[in-house]
Amino acid sequence: MSELVRFGVSLEKPLLDRFDVLNRAKQYINRSEALRDLIRRELVEREWHEGRDVAGAITLVYDHHKRDIMSRAIDTQHEFQEVIISTQHIHLDHHNCLEIVAARGKAEEVQKLADALRSIKGVRHATLCMASTGREIG
Amino acid sequence: MSELVRFGVSLEKPLLDRFDVLNRAKQYINRSEALRDLIRRELVEREWHEGRDVAGAITLVYDHHKRDIMSRAIDTQHEFQEVIISTQHIHLDHHNCLEIVAARGKAEEVQKLADALRSIKGVRHATLCMASTGREIG
Amino acid sequence: MSELVRFGVSLEKPLLDRFDVLNRAKQYINRSEALRDLIRRELVEREWHEGRDVAGAITLVYDHHKRDIMSRAIDTQHEFQEVIISTQHIHLDHHNCLEIVAARGKAEEVQKLADALRSIKGVRHATLCMASTGREIG
Amino acid sequence: MSELVRFGVSLEKPLLDRFDVLNRAKQYINRSEALRDLIRRELVEREWHEGRDVAGAITLVYDHHKRDIMSRAIDTQHEFQEVIISTQHIHLDHHNCLEIVAARGKAEEVQKLADALRSIKGVRHATLCMASTGREIG
Repeated sequence: MSELVRFGVSLEKPLLDRFDVLNRAKQYINRSEALRDLIRRELVEREWHEGRDVAGAITLVYDHHKRDIMSRAIDTQHEFQEVIISTQHIHLDHHNCLEIVAARGKAEEVQKLADALRSIKGVRHATLCMASTGREIG
Repeated sequence: MSELVRFGVSLEKPLLDRFDVLNRAKQYINRSEALRDLIRRELVEREWHEGRDVAGAITLVYDHHKRDIMSRAIDTQHEFQEVIISTQHIHLDHHNCLEIVAARGKAEEVQKLADALRSIKGVRHATLCMASTGREIG
Repeated sequence: MSELVRFGVSLEKPLLDRFDVLNRAKQYINRSEALRDLIRRELVEREWHEGRDVAGAITLVYDHHKRDIMSRAIDTQHEFQEVIISTQHIHLDHHNCLEIVAARGKAEEVQKLADALRSIKGVRHATLCMASTGREIG
Repeated sequence: MSELVRFGVSLEKPLLDRFDVLNRAKQYINRSEALRDLIRRELVEREWHEGRDVAGAITLVYDHHKRDIMSRAIDTQHEFQEVIISTQHIHLDHHNCLEIVAARGKAEEVQKLADALRSIKGVRHATLCMASTGREIG
């Protein structure tokens, strides 16, 4: 558990008031918690930008009736097995599947995996969700 | 399986050349597949913007040693059980966990769930990854 | 000039250290200034999302040799004259112009103007840069 | 003027229908024009990502009554005069100014200029709008 440091911040009153309103809407319990999250978001963007070790999720939407997609998606995942941790498969309806791949590794490798999965014919949508290993934002 | 429609597109040659280079780098097998993905990205952005039925993934990074977080995260997930499909839990290292919540529902509800999870004290990072139910992008 | 309010914030030491490193790289003079900017970015995103009064810049890149573009761009700007403040025109090279339209009004109207300019045949690139009237972030 | 190349694209009918609806809402005159814009957006993102020569706009919002800001903003702009083309200054109301700096150069330099301007005490908001020199997207 990290040591907590306390320091003072000066803000214009109207700005602080609006921040407090926003934080209540977002259910934050106090300002420190809200500010922590703003800071971490900055740091995580930087981790990805600088090509550090990152963790993330890749979402795929596809029609599982096209058997070929599943086998190509699995082939691709095997090629990148070093960066893939696990995969969650969800049946959205009779046709559509949502697959969420948890990945970890160099930012560039995770990006490449997302590109490779997105490019599979029949994959309807793919996003890369940039999370963190947690180490640099503790 | 939807009927395929074929139509002609006119592009400036240098623009098309650069697009082809980019597509090879991204491993697309042909232009139609690459264009399809650009179109779907637009449509999915619109689904979220218009508050339609969406699917998505929420990633959380936290230190599981702080027991309180886990119980609060589970409480919050129960409150929103109608939009949560399933949760994948990954042990990143001795301290850090990556939890990926697959969600589905009105865009606004999924956003609220993401805000509620992000605001839990001790959650180090939370992102909302905007995917699709697949229905509108088939 | 708004009254300044001073309050205390608690942060984990390693997180604060990384934030300080980032702020030095970004040339901030102190933490309050860096935090103020993070807060304002949140508030401005919200102004746009909620359709409030906003200010912004629209950039256009086009080849001015195609005379038709200039007249169509001017026609469109006249249609939206209530939201346009002024326009800056830059000659990037023999062919390419960068035009920057300063706009102000309801978020939806400014967005429509950007869409209308982007859709003009021959406009090579258009972006909408979401700034603020400054009133809500003082 | 570049030579136009015509090629065929295959799309699922429901996807194409939704794309057409979206394009009408965005006022595109035909599909080629809409697709061209999607492609160029991709290419411009890449120009910035790869640190190529770019053009862009930086918006600043500040209270001009704080004289110190104006002189600091001008000092900073002089430091970066090689990447600054021109500046547009708009009086939003009695207090707030919107300043739009047109810039051109290596992506990294333009980013540094935006960071330097954003970090000036009293600058309420700063955004960097990533446009293009037009050369690579003709």
